Amino acid sequence: MVGQDAVDLGFARVDVDREARQGLPEVVYGTGKTPGQVVEIVRTLLRHNDGPVLVTRVDPTAATSVLRAVPAGEYDSGARLLVWRPAAPTGFSVVVAAAGTADRPVAHEAAAVATAVGIGVTTVTDVGVAGLHRLLAERDRLRAADTVIVVAGMEGALASAVGGLVACPVVAVPTSTGYGAGLEGITALLAMHASCAAGITVVNIDSGFGAAMAAFRLSRVARRGTT
Amino acid sequence: MVGQDAVDLGFARVDVDREARQGLPEVVYGTGKTPGQVVEIVRTLLRHNDGPVLVTRVDPTAATSVLRAVPAGEYDSGARLLVWRPAAPTGFSVVVAAAGTADRPVAHEAAAVATAVGIGVTTVTDVGVAGLHRLLAERDRLRAADTVIVVAGMEGALASAVGGLVACPVVAVPTSTGYGAGLEGITALLAMHASCAAGITVVNIDSGFGAAMAAFRLSRVARRGTT
Amino acid sequence: MVGQDAVDLGFARVDVDREARQGLPEVVYGTGKTPGQVVEIVRTLLRHNDGPVLVTRVDPTAATSVLRAVPAGEYDSGARLLVWRPAAPTGFSVVVAAAGTADRPVAHEAAAVATAVGIGVTTVTDVGVAGLHRLLAERDRLRAADTVIVVAGMEGALASAVGGLVACPVVAVPTSTGYGAGLEGITALLAMHASCAAGITVVNIDSGFGAAMAAFRLSRVARRGTT
Amino acid sequence: MVGQDAVDLGFARVDVDREARQGLPEVVYGTGKTPGQVVEIVRTLLRHNDGPVLVTRVDPTAATSVLRAVPAGEYDSGARLLVWRPAAPTGFSVVVAAAGTADRPVAHEAAAVATAVGIGVTTVTDVGVAGLHRLLAERDRLRAADTVIVVAGMEGALASAVGGLVACPVVAVPTSTGYGAGLEGITALLAMHASCAAGITVVNIDSGFGAAMAAFRLSRVARRGTT
Amino acid sequence: MVGQDAVDLGFARVDVDREARQGLPEVVYGTGKTPGQVVEIVRTLLRHNDGPVLVTRVDPTAATSVLRAVPAGEYDSGARLLVWRPAAPTGFSVVVAAAGTADRPVAHEAAAVATAVGIGVTTVTDVGVAGLHRLLAERDRLRAADTVIVVAGMEGALASAVGGLVACPVVAVPTSTGYGAGLEGITALLAMHASCAAGITVVNIDSGFGAAMAAFRLSRVARRGTT
Amino acid sequence: MVGQDAVDLGFARVDVDREARQGLPEVVYGTGKTPGQVVEIVRTLLRHNDGPVLVTRVDPTAATSVLRAVPAGEYDSGARLLVWRPAAPTGFSVVVAAAGTADRPVAHEAAAVATAVGIGVTTVTDVGVAGLHRLLAERDRLRAADTVIVVAGMEGALASAVGGLVACPVVAVPTSTGYGAGLEGITALLAMHASCAAGITVVNIDSGFGAAMAAFRLSRVARRGTT
Amino acid sequence: MVGQDAVDLGFARVDVDREARQGLPEVVYGTGKTPGQVVEIVRTLLRHNDGPVLVTRVDPTAATSVLRAVPAGEYDSGARLLVWRPAAPTGFSVVVAAAGTADRPVAHEAAAVATAVGIGVTTVTDVGVAGLHRLLAERDRLRAADTVIVVAGMEGALASAVGGLVACPVVAVPTSTGYGAGLEGITALLAMHASCAAGITVVNIDSGFGAAMAAFRLSRVARRGTT
Amino acid sequence: MVGQDAVDLGFARVDVDREARQGLPEVVYGTGKTPGQVVEIVRTLLRHNDGPVLVTRVDPTAATSVLRAVPAGEYDSGARLLVWRPAAPTGFSVVVAAAGTADRPVAHEAAAVATAVGIGVTTVTDVGVAGLHRLLAERDRLRAADTVIVVAGMEGALASAVGGLVACPVVAVPTSTGYGAGLEGITALLAMHASCAAGITVVNIDSGFGAAMAAFRLSRVARRGTT
Repeated sequence: MVGQDAVDLGFARVDVDREARQGLPEVVYGTGKTPGQVVEIVRTLLRHNDGPVLVTRVDPTAATSVLRAVPAGEYDSGARLLVWRPAAPTGFSVVVAAAGTADRPVAHEAAAVATAVGIGVTTVTDVGVAGLHRLLAERDRLRAADTVIVVAGMEGALASAVGGLVACPVVAVPTSTGYGAGLEGITALLAMHASCAAGITVVNIDSGFGAAMAAFRLSRVARRGTT
Repeated sequence: MVGQDAVDLGFARVDVDREARQGLPEVVYGTGKTPGQVVEIVRTLLRHNDGPVLVTRVDPTAATSVLRAVPAGEYDSGARLLVWRPAAPTGFSVVVAAAGTADRPVAHEAAAVATAVGIGVTTVTDVGVAGLHRLLAERDRLRAADTVIVVAGMEGALASAVGGLVACPVVAVPTSTGYGAGLEGITALLAMHASCAAGITVVNIDSGFGAAMAAFRLSRVARRGTT
Repeated sequence: MVGQDAVDLGFARVDVDREARQGLPEVVYGTGKTPGQVVEIVRTLLRHNDGPVLVTRVDPTAATSVLRAVPAGEYDSGARLLVWRPAAPTGFSVVVAAAGTADRPVAHEAAAVATAVGIGVTTVTDVGVAGLHRLLAERDRLRAADTVIVVAGMEGALASAVGGLVACPVVAVPTSTGYGAGLEGITALLAMHASCAAGITVVNIDSGFGAAMAAFRLSRVARRGTT
Repeated sequence: MVGQDAVDLGFARVDVDREARQGLPEVVYGTGKTPGQVVEIVRTLLRHNDGPVLVTRVDPTAATSVLRAVPAGEYDSGARLLVWRPAAPTGFSVVVAAAGTADRPVAHEAAAVATAVGIGVTTVTDVGVAGLHRLLAERDRLRAADTVIVVAGMEGALASAVGGLVACPVVAVPTSTGYGAGLEGITALLAMHASCAAGITVVNIDSGFGAAMAAFRLSRVARRGTT
Repeated sequence: MVGQDAVDLGFARVDVDREARQGLPEVVYGTGKTPGQVVEIVRTLLRHNDGPVLVTRVDPTAATSVLRAVPAGEYDSGARLLVWRPAAPTGFSVVVAAAGTADRPVAHEAAAVATAVGIGVTTVTDVGVAGLHRLLAERDRLRAADTVIVVAGMEGALASAVGGLVACPVVAVPTSTGYGAGLEGITALLAMHASCAAGITVVNIDSGFGAAMAAFRLSRVARRGTT
Repeated sequence: MVGQDAVDLGFARVDVDREARQGLPEVVYGTGKTPGQVVEIVRTLLRHNDGPVLVTRVDPTAATSVLRAVPAGEYDSGARLLVWRPAAPTGFSVVVAAAGTADRPVAHEAAAVATAVGIGVTTVTDVGVAGLHRLLAERDRLRAADTVIVVAGMEGALASAVGGLVACPVVAVPTSTGYGAGLEGITALLAMHASCAAGITVVNIDSGFGAAMAAFRLSRVARRGTT
Repeated sequence: MVGQDAVDLGFARVDVDREARQGLPEVVYGTGKTPGQVVEIVRTLLRHNDGPVLVTRVDPTAATSVLRAVPAGEYDSGARLLVWRPAAPTGFSVVVAAAGTADRPVAHEAAAVATAVGIGVTTVTDVGVAGLHRLLAERDRLRAADTVIVVAGMEGALASAVGGLVACPVVAVPTSTGYGAGLEGITALLAMHASCAAGITVVNIDSGFGAAMAAFRLSRVARRGTT
Repeated sequence: MVGQDAVDLGFARVDVDREARQGLPEVVYGTGKTPGQVVEIVRTLLRHNDGPVLVTRVDPTAATSVLRAVPAGEYDSGARLLVWRPAAPTGFSVVVAAAGTADRPVAHEAAAVATAVGIGVTTVTDVGVAGLHRLLAERDRLRAADTVIVVAGMEGALASAVGGLVACPVVAVPTSTGYGAGLEGITALLAMHASCAAGITVVNIDSGFGAAMAAFRLSRVARRGTT
């Protein structure tokens, strides 16, 4: 329980030990932090760690301001993500499959975070189950992936369909798209859990970030191999 | 509107006018009625109406006792349905598509009720979306139907997939199969409403009867034709 | 499962095969799309299909901008609907019955979409069950319809009342009108499912579009006739 | 306020002051009490009060045992109610209107309790809104009542319809009949609250007792008159 | 069931028969209506009825505009209520008891509507159960009322306490005040239904209007007397 | 932190270090354990600890069997609790206040567990807020307590009323008594959280045990005193 | 009980007796009150009581305006709290432990209110269970506290972990931080109640105030000691 | 895609193609199937596939009867699992970590299914977060795993704690243990999704099977390696 490994910035304690424990520096959740606070946390992480430094859910204005103070970072406005020192590709690859156009922002976050931590990403979109031929047309690409991240709102049925098509791990992300009976993503979350396809796993609503982190954990096992 | 058209049996008032209004005598809901009460209601309906007389959700013991008192009826134990004077076939046909083995009792009720009111029924089962090839193998049969009744529990994804494959009306029946996040059918009901396939309609959980009645309403429009 | 039939526009894949499968080109869901994206999708659909092209939930400003780029369309501001090449009347007719004044926008969407796909529409409003005489005064009109679309929020009781009055299909649309115990339409949705009137079907909350699409599916069966 | 007015029986403290405060001795809730406990409580109430003594939700076996120990009581098995010293009729009259056959036990409890406290009761059943003619046939009887108690499960629509037909107070009792989307009475409870008919009030699910008590409160105001 | 008694204004059908059926003209729900629409409806009601005409939930700006077009009305900004031709006092009196300061707007609506329909109103506030001495200090006033309207948010406990103190009808109005576990009034609504005080009735969340209408129904029975 | 302080019994690992950390040996949750397993765990705890050993939720049959194998224990059938080596009284005292008769089993568990860990207990029952005089009659006893444990189901209003009467800590236990809108205790739990009385705390539904443990934590602070 | 002890200000009745009953003047809930109303209430409390006067949830603008009218108060903008006459330290001390950065505003309110009523406060932050070493590094500080207030959103797991580490009372505050499955704090609230750590108590979502008041009740018992 | 690859047994269609698609024959869900049906399905799978054949959720009586008809299988009564032809060990290893004793049956199912498909399994139990030292004592074993399956009911906090300790994939299984606020596992499911530990994934309530299947998918990627 090592432990002096947290740096206290007054407004936050940064877990600089996480890279040693989990292979990746702490990822900063941008919501509710001022640009000044983000700058201080990012500098601390860059100084005490060697790997990629990420800040999620950052508005464009805040991003500009942070990048001016801490250069050499990149901002992906679609994913609302700031990245410094992205990881080199590891050879592990995922397909991010989004059911509809409205699911794209979440898919984008998943793809950008996964890329930043060294995962190869292919994105396919508009493959909802109401048009099965579009999904089946992507079958080979899905089967070639090390992992499939399924991003779907409304009834979330894409997770079940993909789960039956591929043998690799499937990480499902329910999204809050749709209206009425979709209950802001709760329906998709429950439906993905009740799925008839065995071995599917689920992350939080709209959490493209969570799915990418799950893929990162997977990529480490794959690299390690089995003995 | 003013109806002397109800017969008061003391413990129930039978709506003998319904056949005139809706083309079918009142269907008796068997749950919570004694065999003696069922006998009286059935006799009243047989006397005051000309069409098929149905009692749903009847236990085998009760059924035997009722049939002894009111002969010429048939009992379908899978559907738990009693029928007298079944309707002649109307030429309208439905496919009842059940996602999994556990959905069969509900599918059976839908099929038996539909048959009793003159609808032609074909049943296909085990066509859940986790095995798309089994669903696609039935595509032609589905497309030939006048209406498809989709029976599915768990995440209910079959409704969306069928909705995208066929152009005819789709009536979805969520079932209470599954466990945990399936919430006794609530998840499937919500998911079917949030479906990405346009124009799907939904009936109550486990209501094979409701789906068959919806199909009966459809069959009447089809017979009427349009001018 | 034909399939090269999707046109990839980069930001969306348009399902140009849907007209062949379902008798109607893909309907565009306007929410969250830029006018420029809508223009590209509409042009693709007009080029690859022959039937009506619809965009739902479009703001007036966006509508003006789209219509300038793709002329010959019509905008219905009450329904927030853009239409090109509306279908010729098919002879199939629905009554859209709205319980209260607040349900009118949803009823309007149902009516406009149904009209655009060739269905004849009559609208009756303010026929909520708290004033039964207003509903009963419309009885003949309701009974003449091929299908009744019931639009009701709050407790949604109109669906049960209409279901008992007519023999034709009833498609119920719960709306999010009302407050408190109405739970943004969830109460009406559940109540319509628990309805004591047999054979009623339900679509998603506020989905006038869904009800019209259900009616379109019905109209195709009616046209086909039965043999 | 300070009350020596409770009698402590060890296992319960009986509120013998309630008759003075509210015009009726405390009503005993039978569920979970042994016959011996009921006997002691009833004796205490008979001794310290003058008005009717009621025990609700009593099984037939327990009732027999209690009546043997405390004679001069009556047991109503349909209502599962024990009564000693029923009140003389006060001239106040209610109609108990039950939507369906399954709602009868709750209606029976409401009627039996109301009768025991001096209210005149007429019961009408099978007047659900799916058969409006049966409801309208009872219109005059409903309008003659001092109060209408509406007992309805499933979607509970009868409360709205009655609320629009009569000018007197309407007390709605949601019941747990039905299945699936009825949510054990929650749907009916919410729907009755969201009702489009103004001035309807609602009591707890299956609480025929609560509705009768509400009517008793009303009857006292009516007797008092206004000046 | 007479029925030509609705006046069609194009955007709404006004139920001008309601005064005959229920002793009060239709009350207009102001939300979502333009001042112009309100003006037309109010004029129709004033012309075809004799009693008070009310419009609820009207913003000050809209109220000014309506009053300019239809003079002789009064606007109560606290209750957001417009009234023409208020009823003469009937001698029936209610106490409106509000648990906390935040419940005052709802209490105000109840009081203003009740007054407009001829009921005498006394309001007591800040009598929540966390300070029982304040409630007990009002005991005599509460017991003198013909009916008590209890307005309470958060846990809604005031309804139970008042129900035990008075013998007259109690109409409970849950409010959406509070935060977190209060669930926007749902908790108070459920708690009031589960109340240990017998014979309490409940109306919709924040519906001061509903409570006043319930009181109006009560006042009519009281006036009628019993025979 | 690193603990060899757990004893592995194969089917369970007993936390024998807890007495050192928290001043009380681990309490055994009896549900789902065989008498044989309970015997082994109890023996382990008696051997490795000095303080009281408790097993909650034990059926009479299992209790008899366990006591035969591990003598010197006591069984409280009302609380379904087994105790060995009860603690000597510490001078800290609580009042357990139960709203109704149905809440007694939970109150009994709270009282028995508290007594076993050295807390003085007084129990008052039938003090629900619908009879405020019974509650107020206990005011002095409540105010003399070091802590009040409030046990209440249905709407749980007793917690708010007691919270306003006393200055000491109040631990509220919602119970699953009641029916319908009580939602098996969820309504009481939410209502207690939304309480208008400041500084009340809440434990899990039906958890008399949890309330007693909260009181035990309090008693330790009181004994420690403040400096 | 009889209280002339409330001062009626027209828009509110101030409970000036509360200091006598509970050892602390009534705390003013600022939300929804005008600065003018706050000024009047504060003046009343300062005049009729001797102890600290607090107003919670006050915006900076309102605070400035109130302080100008009632000098000698202090405003804590992080806690949004106004305080006059803070209590002298009592020697009772709490640790406020916040799981994440987003939980700080709630932790701040708890700390500021506790300090104002005489409790010594230490705050530790960023000790969520996903980084157990940061929590364990604070073990000694936690164990030295008289009470620990745990502030945590998302899954609220910190409450269970702290409950197992310390023997003193634990008051858990669920917060509405996080998104999706966190359900605005409901998930944390339920999880804290279902905690595997015995004797934890819970207050309302985001109620730093409630936790501080619970600690104040505790501090009074501790000061009193036990005999 | 087109599959003659399903064998129709009349009462079920067996997906004999699944081994080719997903590397494992279809797993049979035993609930609701007769021993005779299970026998037929198992024989079909053994004949058309080469890999392990599993039947989950089988009662001991049914198991005995099936094993008599289809010899060479093994029954694990703790996991209620039947297995024929278990897979040879693949070198991939998981730790199944169960929070409490009550979670063992679910952990057992996960372990037995994983073993049957060739995964090495170590089980650690009683490592709930209320006793962190027991969890930390297992740190090295957890960190050596290729994947950790966390089985936890009540508040499900173990998933967050493990997620912060290990770098490998974490699959969390919420269980329905506990009572009251645990909501039959829903609280744990939501809490695991709202977890503050990044990259955790979740399966359905009580689905030890689902977690093992997720691990099987992972093991295939690990074996494949990355290039």
